[in-house]
Amino acid sequence: MKSKEHILIVGAGLCGSLLALRLAQRGYTITLTEKRPDLRKVTQDAGRSINLALSDRGLKGLRLAGVEEAAKKLCIPMNGRMIHPDGGTPFLSPYSGRKNEYINSISRPGLNQLLLDALDEMPNVAMRFNLGCEQVELERAVAHFKNYETGKNEMLSADLIIGTDGAGSAVRKSMFDHKKFLFSFSQQWLTHGYKELEIPATSDGSFRTYKNALHIWPRGEDMLIALPNLDGSFTVTLFLPYDHSDYSFETMDSREKVLSYFKKEFPDALELMPDLAEEFFQNPTGTLGTIKCTPWHCYGKVLLMGDAAHAIVPFYGQGMNASFEDVVVFDEILDKFEGDWNTVFYEYEKARKKDTDAIADLALDNFHEMKEHTANALFQQKRKLEIAFENELSHAYSSKYSLVTFNEDLPYSEAMKRGRAQDKAILNLLDDGKLPEAMALEEKLKKVQQATQDILHDDIVAKNA
Amino acid sequence: MKSKEHILIVGAGLCGSLLALRLAQRGYTITLTEKRPDLRKVTQDAGRSINLALSDRGLKGLRLAGVEEAAKKLCIPMNGRMIHPDGGTPFLSPYSGRKNEYINSISRPGLNQLLLDALDEMPNVAMRFNLGCEQVELERAVAHFKNYETGKNEMLSADLIIGTDGAGSAVRKSMFDHKKFLFSFSQQWLTHGYKELEIPATSDGSFRTYKNALHIWPRGEDMLIALPNLDGSFTVTLFLPYDHSDYSFETMDSREKVLSYFKKEFPDALELMPDLAEEFFQNPTGTLGTIKCTPWHCYGKVLLMGDAAHAIVPFYGQGMNASFEDVVVFDEILDKFEGDWNTVFYEYEKARKKDTDAIADLALDNFHEMKEHTANALFQQKRKLEIAFENELSHAYSSKYSLVTFNEDLPYSEAMKRGRAQDKAILNLLDDGKLPEAMALEEKLKKVQQATQDILHDDIVAKNA
Repeated sequence: MKSKEHILIVGAGLCGSLLALRLAQRGYTITLTEKRPDLRKVTQDAGRSINLALSDRGLKGLRLAGVEEAAKKLCIPMNGRMIHPDGGTPFLSPYSGRKNEYINSISRPGLNQLLLDALDEMPNVAMRFNLGCEQVELERAVAHFKNYETGKNEMLSADLIIGTDGAGSAVRKSMFDHKKFLFSFSQQWLTHGYKELEIPATSDGSFRTYKNALHIWPRGEDMLIALPNLDGSFTVTLFLPYDHSDYSFETMDSREKVLSYFKKEFPDALELMPDLAEEFFQNPTGTLGTIKCTPWHCYGKVLLMGDAAHAIVPFYGQGMNASFEDVVVFDEILDKFEGDWNTVFYEYEKARKKDTDAIADLALDNFHEMKEHTANALFQQKRKLEIAFENELSHAYSSKYSLVTFNEDLPYSEAMKRGRAQDKAILNLLDDGKLPEAMALEEKLKKVQQATQDILHDDIVAKNA
Repeated sequence: MKSKEHILIVGAGLCGSLLALRLAQRGYTITLTEKRPDLRKVTQDAGRSINLALSDRGLKGLRLAGVEEAAKKLCIPMNGRMIHPDGGTPFLSPYSGRKNEYINSISRPGLNQLLLDALDEMPNVAMRFNLGCEQVELERAVAHFKNYETGKNEMLSADLIIGTDGAGSAVRKSMFDHKKFLFSFSQQWLTHGYKELEIPATSDGSFRTYKNALHIWPRGEDMLIALPNLDGSFTVTLFLPYDHSDYSFETMDSREKVLSYFKKEFPDALELMPDLAEEFFQNPTGTLGTIKCTPWHCYGKVLLMGDAAHAIVPFYGQGMNASFEDVVVFDEILDKFEGDWNTVFYEYEKARKKDTDAIADLALDNFHEMKEHTANALFQQKRKLEIAFENELSHAYSSKYSLVTFNEDLPYSEAMKRGRAQDKAILNLLDDGKLPEAMALEEKLKKVQQATQDILHDDIVAKNA
């Protein structure tokens, strides 16, 4: 029997590490490279997305590689959004009416470390840090690196190369620059950037505000959010336009302006953030972009996965989850076509791309939902009704949020189609006064289901004719 | 009074030439560069989109610069699509039920020559051919060129640079590579390419098939079209997948295969194309792409216009028309903000981008409509009804096609929104049997208008909540 291939995985972030672990478990020889130092040996940069939302699709990926239970120990459940309205009293808007449906706040470096530790146990995995990929010879599966420790250039070759080197992927750039095939590509930047800030723990290590929620301060064009950390702190993120707005990163050029802005817009948060002004000017302003491309592969030699293939904005909390789901889908395709790499790569993209396109679009939808709509009366009526459906008629209804977040066996593209139709149905029924208070919940659900079917049907007729 | 600026326009194709003419008429000093030789002094390449559809938006642009009447002399009116069904009899599907609404087939080099001749008359215009732009220093408005006659590098500076250098724009590439601001960019290639072929004129210079139509042979995945030329020939274009299809450019690798494919799929066209097999292998296979980007401008110094800012696929016949409309919109913005270039560029993009995005999406819609739907029964019922509306109730209805093509004062984005809603309304009313044959035409129109309003209203409620 032919021995299994040597696979070079470029990028040891969350996706690359999980992929390396799973492929090592399948018996491949793995070289895993990473441009940064081993994160277990250095302190972390401040202000770079240090916690993330982990939910059912991500957990399914971790389960496949046998590390779900270990990861769960790093999790803080978040049962809903704690909305802090402008001038009003905060209220909890649950993510689902079902008790077992919640998302988790998890430390990015903590989870990454867990995966690297698991890789240490695999005899068929070699890990190389401080090795920055600069270019890939696609037809030969040869990658060129800069070794940041020695300052020298290095070259690694393998049977296959998988680029999991994130939104700024060097492997993808080699495909973009290659010109021997048509490479469709898009990078779409939001006109908003982000700044990471902190609500520190109290001196005894406890939380300064409600722990088990994702806090949101929606303000129309700008928005503040906060996710809890195991040490009692919250990582806070401000989303703000770069320019052309009353408040923007361009105009926020002094301590006084930052403090008076927070005092006006987020006074309850300001009280919890003693170091706000220092952090604001110390931490970098991050960009928010969506990247799509196709093909994800070439020559049966090179493949892109995770953010390298499909970077999304963070507003659905699905970036990491989508990347872990990539590994699940790739594993299923391997079960069918293992060994025939051209077919594996082609079928993987065919099975997967419509879904990563969908979650990219859903994440952009959610940007608007979070900063504007969560404060909108009709939107809140919809959420109230959906929570009642999920609570009292729990087998018969899942909101768009639930379909995306808690239905890991439903593809994102299906969740998007059904979820958007449901939203449209409910909002219009409510707006038309067709779901009066007095109506029984079962009857309301029937009306919503019928209207949803009608919307889906009308779309299909228009599309197919 | 301050003298008017010196503007360097890179690219003397259709958009650059019309823009140069209009800005020269407004009193600017213009340098217009072009990488190709002066097309009035050389013979044309075969197989490169030698005719185009000119319609009302394009004519409005030519009118603004005083060259509409001259251009009309180069036009052949096309009143509709001549559909050649698979195995059936060809039939004419009019573009509109109104007699005065038709599109025109026009020679690209002929129209370009007309514009260059008009520029020759302007004392404030300098034209430089064989000068290929390689890079632009954006902050200083300095452009670097290769002179293809001397082989030497040249540098031109100006107060402003406008890049009208087409889909492969070097000016845009300088913005993409610049990295000092966020540049959103997308290039989307169709999995279909195209090949230009010819139906020659008869020996006495007359047309071998019906002259005043755009001929279409829709075949699902592939499609043939033909547009008439003044010399009695038709330019024929085959649209075909590159690969992964029963028939594709990949599999079409011999004369025999090409001929047997045409014999099976397009037998009536084959009879008119004596040199098919030679042309197929002599002419290049062209790519079909959509390019979008933002911002279109930087530093109040550099602006992109035409295909350089928004290249689209050719299926709505709107590429040139959209570029000429750019000149009209830019001229309107100049009327308001002339002299304040940062504002001119910002307001121009703000006014214009939603519309060029819309025509890009509409052109992709039409690709599917042309190759698949024109042969679909429900689609044909819809067209029949729309033609009746436009014919008998001509002031009360315009189809999506008419809104886009013949309503030059309605922005593309509005035409798209209203047109798509109308299409959806009609198709669903027909599919549900709600427009029975016996119903009076006025009543049918009322039902369509009401259903269209409902669709637009429901979309707005869903979007705003």
